[in-house]
Amino acid sequence: MSSLEKVIELFKRFPGIGPRQAQRFVYFLLAMPPGFRKELAGAIASIGNDAKRCLECGRFFSGSKHTHCSICSDSARSAEQLLVVAKDIDLANVERSGLYSGRYFVLRGTIPVLSKEPNKYIATGALKKLVEARVEKGLREIILAFPANPDGEHTEREIRGLLSPITDKNNIIVSALGRGLSTGAELEYVDRDTIRGALQNRS
Amino acid sequence: MSSLEKVIELFKRFPGIGPRQAQRFVYFLLAMPPGFRKELAGAIASIGNDAKRCLECGRFFSGSKHTHCSICSDSARSAEQLLVVAKDIDLANVERSGLYSGRYFVLRGTIPVLSKEPNKYIATGALKKLVEARVEKGLREIILAFPANPDGEHTEREIRGLLSPITDKNNIIVSALGRGLSTGAELEYVDRDTIRGALQNRS
Amino acid sequence: MSSLEKVIELFKRFPGIGPRQAQRFVYFLLAMPPGFRKELAGAIASIGNDAKRCLECGRFFSGSKHTHCSICSDSARSAEQLLVVAKDIDLANVERSGLYSGRYFVLRGTIPVLSKEPNKYIATGALKKLVEARVEKGLREIILAFPANPDGEHTEREIRGLLSPITDKNNIIVSALGRGLSTGAELEYVDRDTIRGALQNRS
Amino acid sequence: MSSLEKVIELFKRFPGIGPRQAQRFVYFLLAMPPGFRKELAGAIASIGNDAKRCLECGRFFSGSKHTHCSICSDSARSAEQLLVVAKDIDLANVERSGLYSGRYFVLRGTIPVLSKEPNKYIATGALKKLVEARVEKGLREIILAFPANPDGEHTEREIRGLLSPITDKNNIIVSALGRGLSTGAELEYVDRDTIRGALQNRS
Repeated sequence: MSSLEKVIELFKRFPGIGPRQAQRFVYFLLAMPPGFRKELAGAIASIGNDAKRCLECGRFFSGSKHTHCSICSDSARSAEQLLVVAKDIDLANVERSGLYSGRYFVLRGTIPVLSKEPNKYIATGALKKLVEARVEKGLREIILAFPANPDGEHTEREIRGLLSPITDKNNIIVSALGRGLSTGAELEYVDRDTIRGALQNRS
Repeated sequence: MSSLEKVIELFKRFPGIGPRQAQRFVYFLLAMPPGFRKELAGAIASIGNDAKRCLECGRFFSGSKHTHCSICSDSARSAEQLLVVAKDIDLANVERSGLYSGRYFVLRGTIPVLSKEPNKYIATGALKKLVEARVEKGLREIILAFPANPDGEHTEREIRGLLSPITDKNNIIVSALGRGLSTGAELEYVDRDTIRGALQNRS
Repeated sequence: MSSLEKVIELFKRFPGIGPRQAQRFVYFLLAMPPGFRKELAGAIASIGNDAKRCLECGRFFSGSKHTHCSICSDSARSAEQLLVVAKDIDLANVERSGLYSGRYFVLRGTIPVLSKEPNKYIATGALKKLVEARVEKGLREIILAFPANPDGEHTEREIRGLLSPITDKNNIIVSALGRGLSTGAELEYVDRDTIRGALQNRS
Repeated sequence: MSSLEKVIELFKRFPGIGPRQAQRFVYFLLAMPPGFRKELAGAIASIGNDAKRCLECGRFFSGSKHTHCSICSDSARSAEQLLVVAKDIDLANVERSGLYSGRYFVLRGTIPVLSKEPNKYIATGALKKLVEARVEKGLREIILAFPANPDGEHTEREIRGLLSPITDKNNIIVSALGRGLSTGAELEYVDRDTIRGALQNRS
């Protein structure tokens, strides 16, 4: 297999990229100056060294000398709240909003409704340990921030159950993101669960 | 103009129907048995007689002998809440959910952000009168249920201002539908306002 | 069932119209002045009288005193070509282009690939009779203008077979619309059959 | 800038990739085993060495020892036809069809309708030289295979003009891909130019 074919094969494994798009990427790379390809190759090769999972929240961050990411190292962030998201990119979007100043944990996925071995796929063990460690730092609330779909709701129930021994004993609130009208939603089109959330969360 | 051309012209004025679709409707009608066209024509001609706006909520309902629709005539519905929607079809969707048992008012539109004469377009006068009348029936809360977009938010502000003399004096709460994750929403894609609502309305 | 509900039920049978859109149509009608509904009802009721199928091409046309549509009555149109389309609206689009000056026949559908009784659904008998009648008027070519999909191709084969006794005997050419690049097509995305047509029909 | 940020910046320059998708790519890469990133980086770095433009048709191909791609080196391919496409990926799609056995040239783009300096952007000089060289090898026809849109049509006219001194003198036919119904096209929806092509190319 030539390097062209190899690049196509590898790009085809990227999320949302089919064979046609992979081929288009290769033609794009070929049309770019050699410096661009060299820079990209170098950067891709080194993200593995530069990026590592934060020992606390589990998200990827860059900085080879540190074990904790900038958020988890920031003592100004509130120790009272812990927001649990499914994916790194969810955390990035919440952080970009500037509306949350507590701490995070990335679960690395949701638990499929029909899954038999959820713990195999997601970082439940690490979450449990983190919650135990944060209790004495003043943790008051765990906010479960999963997608508003069946897998997200299933994951919420499972995580509530998993954490209940610790949260019950220590009087820690476990909440979930509120349901309601997302930006752009029109009453005419929303479903029953959204109407329920929007009515309950009226203010 | 032949009746074919006239039907096409009239269908073109329907919401979301372009010239092509209008033409397709006419060919569909021609291909149906004459009884279908007769039935449709008869029903269209008589909805004007059969349907009228409810004197209370303002929505269209059928029933030539009544002045009030079945919801407004239903004494079992709570007199404490009044839900204000922009359109008849919004009311229909909320009612279908079975999650709300109070009373309704249809504003017949939203107030465009740049509008100079909002009262021309929407039933603000009728709303004001209704609220005054409902105060002595035990009204406790007015729920503004407008779309989660700029016009909807603008309408909410305007209606709050319009009603404040009455609601302030009578201690009536004015609330709005809660913002948050609509069904299917993923944290990765939602915008800042939705994150704000979802965080505020967590539970 | 009230007239409102009846109108919704009837609109739901229109092509491409679901329950939600049907409901929206009714609210639209209710919001229009009574004269609009009356005009629409009247026009729908009378298209059955005003429109009839042309005795020659089979398309619907308006004009109660005539048995033949304006195209079939127009002696200036070439008697040498007969274009066979699946639907009235196909004929309308070709005629609108102004690029064809021969005669038409509307087959009233295509023959599904798996159909067992094609003649039940489409006007094959009437086509056969028309072709026989047109032979002595100077017919030289029959152009089959069906959609570029499996049903269209199947229909083309069936109609060629059906007409072959007459066309063979009378030396009448049977052609089909050319395949190639439709407006907007890009070579990168087109399928094999389109490439074949585009290469064959290069000029 | 960290290597993570650099990779995001570089992916954002890929065709059709926005900031969000670029970020998703990085998280995907981080979640893959280090071997995957190493393999990808290596392959990207080496396509520049492995791939080069064919000295004849101008397309990218892999094979460091050759100056001509496998198609241009294949003496079994007809020397009578030369198909001129805008992009490498167009050539790939035609070649995949197996319907063409002549030779190719990649123009590296189309000429925008409003362009003042077309020769700056596309390989017109190389095309002219190739045509001159192929004349004595038996070239009989040049097939212009550009997209069916204004830029494609403009490019076709310009290239015809550019080549006319050579093609006129040597009696070489210059053709273009046929217009007509692309697979899936329905007569009801196609535009006038497509109807014209489909009627002209009927067979």
